[in-house]
Amino acid sequence: MPLVNYTEDPLHVLHPKDGAAGTDRPKALLAAVEEDPDPLLKLAASHVVSSQQFSRDELLQLFRLAAQYETTPALMHLPLAGKILISAFYEPSTRTRLSFESAWHRLGGSVMSITDPKSTGIAKGESLADIAEMFNNYGDVLVLRSSDGEAAHNMLENLRIPLVNAGNGIDEHPTQALADVYALAKWRPELFTGEVAPEQRIKVGIIGVPSRMRTVRSLLRLLSLFPQAIDEIVLVSREDENFDPGQREELEEAGISLRVVHDLDPALPDLDVVYINAIAWVGDTFEAMGEGLKLDRHSPLKEGAVVLHPLARGEELSTDLDATPHNWYFAQARGAVFVRMALLTTVVRRISAVMDTPDG
Amino acid sequence: MPLVNYTEDPLHVLHPKDGAAGTDRPKALLAAVEEDPDPLLKLAASHVVSSQQFSRDELLQLFRLAAQYETTPALMHLPLAGKILISAFYEPSTRTRLSFESAWHRLGGSVMSITDPKSTGIAKGESLADIAEMFNNYGDVLVLRSSDGEAAHNMLENLRIPLVNAGNGIDEHPTQALADVYALAKWRPELFTGEVAPEQRIKVGIIGVPSRMRTVRSLLRLLSLFPQAIDEIVLVSREDENFDPGQREELEEAGISLRVVHDLDPALPDLDVVYINAIAWVGDTFEAMGEGLKLDRHSPLKEGAVVLHPLARGEELSTDLDATPHNWYFAQARGAVFVRMALLTTVVRRISAVMDTPDG
Amino acid sequence: MPLVNYTEDPLHVLHPKDGAAGTDRPKALLAAVEEDPDPLLKLAASHVVSSQQFSRDELLQLFRLAAQYETTPALMHLPLAGKILISAFYEPSTRTRLSFESAWHRLGGSVMSITDPKSTGIAKGESLADIAEMFNNYGDVLVLRSSDGEAAHNMLENLRIPLVNAGNGIDEHPTQALADVYALAKWRPELFTGEVAPEQRIKVGIIGVPSRMRTVRSLLRLLSLFPQAIDEIVLVSREDENFDPGQREELEEAGISLRVVHDLDPALPDLDVVYINAIAWVGDTFEAMGEGLKLDRHSPLKEGAVVLHPLARGEELSTDLDATPHNWYFAQARGAVFVRMALLTTVVRRISAVMDTPDG
Repeated sequence: MPLVNYTEDPLHVLHPKDGAAGTDRPKALLAAVEEDPDPLLKLAASHVVSSQQFSRDELLQLFRLAAQYETTPALMHLPLAGKILISAFYEPSTRTRLSFESAWHRLGGSVMSITDPKSTGIAKGESLADIAEMFNNYGDVLVLRSSDGEAAHNMLENLRIPLVNAGNGIDEHPTQALADVYALAKWRPELFTGEVAPEQRIKVGIIGVPSRMRTVRSLLRLLSLFPQAIDEIVLVSREDENFDPGQREELEEAGISLRVVHDLDPALPDLDVVYINAIAWVGDTFEAMGEGLKLDRHSPLKEGAVVLHPLARGEELSTDLDATPHNWYFAQARGAVFVRMALLTTVVRRISAVMDTPDG
Repeated sequence: MPLVNYTEDPLHVLHPKDGAAGTDRPKALLAAVEEDPDPLLKLAASHVVSSQQFSRDELLQLFRLAAQYETTPALMHLPLAGKILISAFYEPSTRTRLSFESAWHRLGGSVMSITDPKSTGIAKGESLADIAEMFNNYGDVLVLRSSDGEAAHNMLENLRIPLVNAGNGIDEHPTQALADVYALAKWRPELFTGEVAPEQRIKVGIIGVPSRMRTVRSLLRLLSLFPQAIDEIVLVSREDENFDPGQREELEEAGISLRVVHDLDPALPDLDVVYINAIAWVGDTFEAMGEGLKLDRHSPLKEGAVVLHPLARGEELSTDLDATPHNWYFAQARGAVFVRMALLTTVVRRISAVMDTPDG
Repeated sequence: MPLVNYTEDPLHVLHPKDGAAGTDRPKALLAAVEEDPDPLLKLAASHVVSSQQFSRDELLQLFRLAAQYETTPALMHLPLAGKILISAFYEPSTRTRLSFESAWHRLGGSVMSITDPKSTGIAKGESLADIAEMFNNYGDVLVLRSSDGEAAHNMLENLRIPLVNAGNGIDEHPTQALADVYALAKWRPELFTGEVAPEQRIKVGIIGVPSRMRTVRSLLRLLSLFPQAIDEIVLVSREDENFDPGQREELEEAGISLRVVHDLDPALPDLDVVYINAIAWVGDTFEAMGEGLKLDRHSPLKEGAVVLHPLARGEELSTDLDATPHNWYFAQARGAVFVRMALLTTVVRRISAVMDTPDG
């Protein structure tokens, strides 16, 4: 390696920590939603397993609280000091794990991580019920990721602390969907907070297969709470079978207009939002969606359109889009911590510490 | 996986967090023991390597403090903030490790975990003495588990921070024994706090081999501090040789009456307490104790008898006992965190923060 | 294993926690340097990648603050509560990792560790730029160790939180060098704080190969800031080529007189400081420096000479020197935590919490 002369190298000078997309957008979102603790107090009585559990009002209040965290870092004097998050990642995931742990630490709490399945009781044949009983004694909330779609469900009967599903097999990934829709709520708050004129409604392109991609399944369920804002969802997929039985009907009954296309580029000029996520979870292997489903600076993106990606990305999303206004995935990644802060504050019943509540 | 309709599924509703056996029992224990800081101040001057180190008075005060933590979670305003526990588990153990770390976090402290022996100096041939010197600089207390029975002993000469033995080979597991006896003290406080009429004394069955099971060895030593409460200890074992040289004599000199039997079921109708732990640590492999040493709903358990198990359990303890009054192992597991909180508060010399002391 | 009778064994009695070399030396250092926040406020504007970045004044103020931490543990009421250190060790290192994490915890902060490269995005082909973007969102400072010498450099462009290099390939290990020189500053503060009479200047022996040992490279750069204190640096090496192009010239231009010798023992009687570090990092294997480069009680060490070693040690440094006054490596190891506390306080811009500053 060549010797670097640091006295001449400007690279070690620290950049300002402004954050992706700044704080103007979350401030606008904060202004657009009126504070109401009731939906969150209601949400506090349940585990978080599926996107389907959220109501529209719960989402808006979660996003409002997330925006508050994003704009006012010193909002609270560490309301979760002495509280313990059990971070059980039986399927590896640095990004989601650190996002949850960062959210919890920002609130003053402590974390106990389980990242090596081999060191756990599960490997020794201990039942999920017994492990749930152990977690009851050791922590205040359980964040669980597992490649086994049933594991989260099977623990519920024995858990007395709230479980937050951080991805269970091909089933759901509800907090990723929260981060996705929070990014859109920051982008255009007015879409989520009231009636939307027909010509203002947006077209959302989603690249993926809803029947076997948990992020897509969870995202569709959250979007279906806002039919008044969505003109159409365009699903881009190379597959012939994209939906589980009943999955498409569930969305259409919620008022979502769904269209499936095979090619990305012809659809792009009409899309206001493009959600891309090239890595599909299939059983216990990863599968690329194939050629022709990529975005770069030469893609025919509509002016003003934003691109979302849950990251980490591969070749499907070129870095040459990073410096363009289409890059909304960095704002999405940044918001993922704040929206998890809002959710965790809710499920451990500390809403009264950050909002005016009847019992606060 | 079939689609779950969460709007109809009641499972995601959170159960009340009442805890195993509630708080009545620890409250009774708290009432039965008079507060006295002196025994704990004395204990604070030593490492905790063996059950043999505890006196009867030290145990009672530890149990009293544990009961106080169990009934009054907000007893203290995080007395260990800024203090560091080094959690060195050179032998994997999620349950014991998380129990210690949870106890420490509850008190406001920070944890540094070492769970991968390959990433430590030991693997590179670093001496235990040098590692001890490193730990002196980095933490305030060392919790050590090792499959090498000598490791804990060999570190003592160089350690200036207290060591707490979390299981050393087949030798001892003193904090598991604390949790075991704390469970009994919650069950019937009067057995431990004064004279016991002969007809009130209990028969304790222990399934296991004292010479090679560290939990059994440590438990027997703690029980031997309460001969006035114990009519007889019945050891259930399929082996012919169950004791190390001197081990049986040590117990009998302490006033414990010991009997060894080969079969479980004939002994059960007389036992007030049954301690079961089917997994024996032998060298570096696990060995099941064999058929015929199992408990389930059809076992001839005495009315009012309680079952203890250090968990994780295997086939030897049927889940069909979970919903019966014989299940005292969940109360035992729950108490394991609180009794470790009491011990850790003691060894890092913060007793004055939670009890009235001459220098407090 | 023989039964230990703990009632007769004195080993479990806790030693007083006095620490290596006590607190007299750091107190003397503290008294010798006048407090001045300006150099640290300047340092706070950069990443810490290389020893070459530090000025003499920055070093002195860092050492002063480290001495303050070493002598006054309760200096601050946890100024980093709620702040997050990302501890990314893509190359295993228990000692350096725990030293950083302990330093951060002592200041009240939280830690997120990444110790398994396989669980990170890097293994999945994620770019360092994207990982840097993720870290921006999750933490307040990044401590990075990598066997890839370029990794730290390649992250800088995208990082908006400060990076502290904890060892990058064979390039640099600047915080180890800080610990090394802090140990010397505690040993003889007058060498570092003013003019030194010619007969008081010291001879420093360094066993190692500067071109491929990052600790040696970083140490030499820091020592070159104090030419007024150093009569000569004697490099002990069995190699013919010891320097990268320009490396020797850089030191000599700074006013350091350098001599290379092949044998240790003939040089020893003249040396005031002996820095030994027998393990050389070469590509991705370790290589011992060979026979004849060892220190023990029979080595012809000068009276009053001190030995430094970054630890962990192997056969090259005998434990029979531990109890002699030549042992300054334990004081060095102890100070490593405090000097990292000083550096971390600086880079996360909390100097005003511990020193009087214009904006404090």
